[in-house]
Amino acid sequence: MSEINLGITADMHVHLRDGAMSKLITPTVRSGGISICYVMPNLVPPITTKQQVINYHKQLNDIAPETTFLMSFYLSKDLTPELISECADEGLIHGIKCYPAGVTTNSKYGVDPNDFSQFYPLFEVMEKKGIILNLHGEKPGIEEKDEINIINAESKFLPALRKLHSDFPKLKIILEHTTTSEAIELVRELNSDKKEGDDITIGATITAHHLYLIIDNWASNPINYCKPVAKFHKDKKALIDAATSGEPWFFFGSDSAPHPIHKKQVHVDVCAGVYTQCNSVAYVAEIFDKYNKIENFKKFISDNGIKFYDLNEKILAKHKGESVWLIERENKVPEVIANGDVEVVPFKAGDELKYIVEWRKN
Amino acid sequence: MSEINLGITADMHVHLRDGAMSKLITPTVRSGGISICYVMPNLVPPITTKQQVINYHKQLNDIAPETTFLMSFYLSKDLTPELISECADEGLIHGIKCYPAGVTTNSKYGVDPNDFSQFYPLFEVMEKKGIILNLHGEKPGIEEKDEINIINAESKFLPALRKLHSDFPKLKIILEHTTTSEAIELVRELNSDKKEGDDITIGATITAHHLYLIIDNWASNPINYCKPVAKFHKDKKALIDAATSGEPWFFFGSDSAPHPIHKKQVHVDVCAGVYTQCNSVAYVAEIFDKYNKIENFKKFISDNGIKFYDLNEKILAKHKGESVWLIERENKVPEVIANGDVEVVPFKAGDELKYIVEWRKN
Repeated sequence: MSEINLGITADMHVHLRDGAMSKLITPTVRSGGISICYVMPNLVPPITTKQQVINYHKQLNDIAPETTFLMSFYLSKDLTPELISECADEGLIHGIKCYPAGVTTNSKYGVDPNDFSQFYPLFEVMEKKGIILNLHGEKPGIEEKDEINIINAESKFLPALRKLHSDFPKLKIILEHTTTSEAIELVRELNSDKKEGDDITIGATITAHHLYLIIDNWASNPINYCKPVAKFHKDKKALIDAATSGEPWFFFGSDSAPHPIHKKQVHVDVCAGVYTQCNSVAYVAEIFDKYNKIENFKKFISDNGIKFYDLNEKILAKHKGESVWLIERENKVPEVIANGDVEVVPFKAGDELKYIVEWRKN
Repeated sequence: MSEINLGITADMHVHLRDGAMSKLITPTVRSGGISICYVMPNLVPPITTKQQVINYHKQLNDIAPETTFLMSFYLSKDLTPELISECADEGLIHGIKCYPAGVTTNSKYGVDPNDFSQFYPLFEVMEKKGIILNLHGEKPGIEEKDEINIINAESKFLPALRKLHSDFPKLKIILEHTTTSEAIELVRELNSDKKEGDDITIGATITAHHLYLIIDNWASNPINYCKPVAKFHKDKKALIDAATSGEPWFFFGSDSAPHPIHKKQVHVDVCAGVYTQCNSVAYVAEIFDKYNKIENFKKFISDNGIKFYDLNEKILAKHKGESVWLIERENKVPEVIANGDVEVVPFKAGDELKYIVEWRKN
């Protein structure tokens, strides 16, 4: 039986919600095998003040004190350079998430990616302070003549990423939950001049579910519907190739996004999001195993993300006494997890998994 | 207020189901504005015997005696040249529907479009007797390496249509519920040598809902999910252009395919099909109106289909005393139609429509 020490693991894109849902799923960051997670700010209302960051962090920490929660702001006109500078200096935030208006859950407060210039004063401070810009990379289709749809929206967004990197070469930018071969190619291209030891400023997260799904798998299965949607075989192949490559700009961000099951069982307006937190490490390990790349697994699920976020010893110290171990042992994904009335159906509910995780003292 | 006499209308692709569902929706062929409909054979079990045809026709006729139901067989190994010949001579069937295995509702008894040769003896009789081959034009993806998905499945099927037409140039073939610009182009190409008055052997039906939907409209709305799925803006444009063109190879086939609403409100295995029967003529008229092509509406909804099916005076006689009139009058699509426990939510439920239909004596 094989066992692998993964050290301190990182999921750089989680949605931990609020209220009863948060109480249900926040502990599953750890039970799914993750030490450190980067928390998305798309609550209602979105997180745009220092006090909201402090309150939300306390709320999550009270639920799951053994987990490290890295916090973020929601990019909006409410943010100021002074606020970002202050929160960065105090170590309260690690990044700012940019949602194009209207593309996913609670994104109605989002921005127009055709015109980032209004945020350039913010990006200047972020670049200086090492605060990451997390991009939901989909271009919204406003009018029919734009010919934008959920399949090409990510590819149509890529010129905006290229321009941002050109205008702010030292700003750390992550293209979140990449789903297309085009996005993977661009991230590689923008890093093609990097040599071993160079600072990397363009990264990409890849989810667990996008390593499994194509369009056919969600079309008649709302449980697998998320934004950006899973695309085609060629895209899935590109994502698997990128994730398992060991390249330092690709790392894990689950985009685990739970919704109560009754919001998935509807004939109109299905909520976008796949919940993977409770088995996140095991889902991904199985792909690495299948493609004989398990030797690169720790890079993807731990080292690359921690390095990109430049997490200091103070943050890592909390986890130095323990390690996540990946153990080969058959188990099943739960059919449902519940907290009172809140029921969430996980990705691949009821399916067999090959791996479990265990936390062990060093 | 404008009024248009549509004469005898035809919907050349309907699913009228069985039992309580059939009792609910069969009368809506007429209330939706249709005189003559072509009935698909994908019951459980599929219709493959003379007695099944007779029974199903009687069952439908008992429910809605004013409507003409044109009957079909389900292409399978159970059919013989002798059976087809006999049923054709007696006027019992007008066509045979081919379902590729596994692509849509009750298609598990379907065929492999890579190998139609086993059915060539049937096609020979059909060609001779004027029996139509109705194709569900999607290539099933068996293995990942086939790179077939719900977006390219129709385009990947088109070479099979080309080969069938080449091998049986006089066999009447309809590519049903076309959804792509590629399919529209091929139907035009295969008819490019036709002159006014020539017999046409390649036709295509176009649904109401594919004139409205693209992928974004069904992705989070299972009520709009059908097979083949609605594709992209360019495809919708091509379908609207074809339908409104007046070209004789394009005609109406609603593919109205009701499912009980509880089979649409599920998080896995949503049933494929959009129910449009109750307002079918009005949905389509609105598109012709929007694109200033109402002068071609009667060709699409009446003349082209009746001509392609070569319906004789005996069949048409039943409808000579009455006409369907299209009347400009605002109305609303019902939120739901129901028969006891069976509830069906129509396409565009609750939306405003610009037209109604009336039946008037000549």
